[in-house]
Amino acid sequence: MNDSTSTHETAGREDSPALSASAFLRDFHHTSRFGATSGGGIDRQAGTPEHGAVRDWFEERAQELGFTVAGDGIGTLFARREWIPGAPFVLVGSHLDSQPLGGRFDGTYGVVAALHAAAAVDADVAAGTLSPRHNVAVVDWFNEEGSRFAPSIMGSSVHAGLLDLDTALRTRDPDGTTVAEALEATGRRGGTPGPTAAAYAEIHIEQGRRLERSGIPVGVVDRSWHTQKLLVSVVGEQSHTGATLMADRRDALTAAAQVVLAVESVVESFPPESIVTSVGQLDVEPNSPIVVPRQVDLVVDLRADRAEDVDRARRLLLDRFREVAADRGVEVRSEDFDVRPVQRFPAAGVDLAEKAARDDGLESAVLATLAGHDAVAMNRVAPSVMLFVPSTDGVSHCEREYTSDADMVSGLSVLTGVLRRLVAGDLDDVAPGGSATA
Amino acid sequence: MNDSTSTHETAGREDSPALSASAFLRDFHHTSRFGATSGGGIDRQAGTPEHGAVRDWFEERAQELGFTVAGDGIGTLFARREWIPGAPFVLVGSHLDSQPLGGRFDGTYGVVAALHAAAAVDADVAAGTLSPRHNVAVVDWFNEEGSRFAPSIMGSSVHAGLLDLDTALRTRDPDGTTVAEALEATGRRGGTPGPTAAAYAEIHIEQGRRLERSGIPVGVVDRSWHTQKLLVSVVGEQSHTGATLMADRRDALTAAAQVVLAVESVVESFPPESIVTSVGQLDVEPNSPIVVPRQVDLVVDLRADRAEDVDRARRLLLDRFREVAADRGVEVRSEDFDVRPVQRFPAAGVDLAEKAARDDGLESAVLATLAGHDAVAMNRVAPSVMLFVPSTDGVSHCEREYTSDADMVSGLSVLTGVLRRLVAGDLDDVAPGGSATA
Repeated sequence: MNDSTSTHETAGREDSPALSASAFLRDFHHTSRFGATSGGGIDRQAGTPEHGAVRDWFEERAQELGFTVAGDGIGTLFARREWIPGAPFVLVGSHLDSQPLGGRFDGTYGVVAALHAAAAVDADVAAGTLSPRHNVAVVDWFNEEGSRFAPSIMGSSVHAGLLDLDTALRTRDPDGTTVAEALEATGRRGGTPGPTAAAYAEIHIEQGRRLERSGIPVGVVDRSWHTQKLLVSVVGEQSHTGATLMADRRDALTAAAQVVLAVESVVESFPPESIVTSVGQLDVEPNSPIVVPRQVDLVVDLRADRAEDVDRARRLLLDRFREVAADRGVEVRSEDFDVRPVQRFPAAGVDLAEKAARDDGLESAVLATLAGHDAVAMNRVAPSVMLFVPSTDGVSHCEREYTSDADMVSGLSVLTGVLRRLVAGDLDDVAPGGSATA
Repeated sequence: MNDSTSTHETAGREDSPALSASAFLRDFHHTSRFGATSGGGIDRQAGTPEHGAVRDWFEERAQELGFTVAGDGIGTLFARREWIPGAPFVLVGSHLDSQPLGGRFDGTYGVVAALHAAAAVDADVAAGTLSPRHNVAVVDWFNEEGSRFAPSIMGSSVHAGLLDLDTALRTRDPDGTTVAEALEATGRRGGTPGPTAAAYAEIHIEQGRRLERSGIPVGVVDRSWHTQKLLVSVVGEQSHTGATLMADRRDALTAAAQVVLAVESVVESFPPESIVTSVGQLDVEPNSPIVVPRQVDLVVDLRADRAEDVDRARRLLLDRFREVAADRGVEVRSEDFDVRPVQRFPAAGVDLAEKAARDDGLESAVLATLAGHDAVAMNRVAPSVMLFVPSTDGVSHCEREYTSDADMVSGLSVLTGVLRRLVAGDLDDVAPGGSATA
């Protein structure tokens, strides 16, 4: 058998630069230049020039592949391919913004894979091997990370009606710049509402090590963990590091150090790997080398598969905070915020994704996502499918975040299979997912 | 006995607005308006508009009292009264800058008391009851606090030749403003070199509670504590607070919390009140609520009466830092800086101050200063006398810092007695103080 006798469909996909694994890898690795850091990561916080530059590249590349690109009011980009005028769209995508000194894969992999999956489906439609019931749009959601502008998952939350557009546009970064100003500065304050979603698909790096440990190349997400944050303020009294005797101090920072360690050790009251807790942000006032700190504000992040575990951890911590306050004569205030109950993805979507993996000869595992994703927001308004690929050493939000080319290509193949089925209408009768506790 | 038959000297001092206790208290309490905070303190960091405003007031008030005011290149103000043209000057003063949300007494008390003590001595000279061998200059040293521009004790260190003027002028605050720019903005970039000091005197609040506990109104400082700082960097790895399992993290902040608590508990290896240790400044990178911290930089402040105690505390801490690093798979780097050996004030100056207190019928106690002061720098180049008045509850660098009017007036009286003796040349044959370990 020579090239001319292979099936048309396979040969066509492999020969087209849009549709080959090597074209995908070339595009993906090209994106790492935008906001590249010396440590091999990227720094592309939402609305920065580096973020603007990679989005310019995305727009140009999508246009080359035959898509029409327009941004909505919160700066999310939609690259549309409209085969059936007026029909709803299947959305597929992720985000091109990153954490400060973040990794090359988080979000970006999902956008570039979505573009290539949609281009492959477009080729199928053009070849007559797929009859679409919906159009397709590749999405680059604005500000998934939330490191510069809180809250995270901003673009998809606005699209899903979970966050008010005007509130989001008025959000300020630590320097006082608003989202609206950052979008103007990068030319991404759009005016074209995004299309209504018939369904949504997203592929992302796992950011944990469950797939790596089990040697399984593809994860299918059936639920998100229950998460919540606590804003903790430790209020002591400012005094002089030189002259004030130890017994006369009410040091907010030593008390806050006990809070940080309590947050870490509370996991010992739970089965291994059933809960994660962190303090990522901590600010000292007045933060002078020769002043005993007056106040420390910190953010506690609690995440567990079961809501009751988060609730119990929270109660244990509040008890511990009261002990620290009493021991040290300081005040420890705690305020709940950003509570996100467990969300379930539709079972039919999980089945569909497992079938797509099997068709590619790939083993898949069903698992929960510990992190928030745009798919969790979109799943509230459209039946959504979320896929994972392995993360080496389970690390993410750092420069050494890594996923192999082979794993990325396997994921792209399964995402393409999922997208074909969604475009064909396979989830048309399925309701969106929702809160397990609702 | 009625007013007209009291001695001329006493009656003259009490009737002149410059020389009465009430005039001093009126001036002192007036200064609390500049940079007043809602909590009863002041916020007048060096080179800010609030600092500029209180210095404008000082210049005007000194001129009213017959002094000639000029600033030097680092923005220290000298208010001169030159009885003997060309003779050296006795300097007396402190500083008008404050910590952020600092107290009304720290530094400011010493400047206003110096102005009134010098005015009283001037009245003595005018009345012919004192024959001066030196002139007098009241000093407001620039940037004693160092909270905005490090290092602290800047103006007096430049005057004493311990710090290079150009280096000091190029120092930047956290917003990037230089000392030179801040001085220009407040009109205090002067060009008149300060006078050479024949001797120096300073009165300051104790900032501890030794005088209060013993019920003694005046302290005479015979030495400064040995102090040093450590710049500690804890380097872990950035990861995702949601997705990264606890076992896969190398969290810089939980390790830094152990460092903070180790710094506090190291004092338990020493006799009570023989050492103080603190962490006043701590910065988290990247300081995002959903990122496990990559790096924490913090400043450790160690102070003890004996250099060997500081050295032993430092060794114990470095051992503990190594344990934390090994336990957690992070790096803990530590760098020594700002090492200030014990400095002794001349014994003749201590005797002179005790005599001045006895002449006022006041008990005095000899003690060490745990904090740094302009007098510690000046003592390197001129025989110096440093006095303390009690601090209620021993607290300082905070809004509730407090010293009673009665204690301030007692201190002013002793300072005036000290200044009379210095102007009369009582320390002329005494060498400057110096390092105990030199």
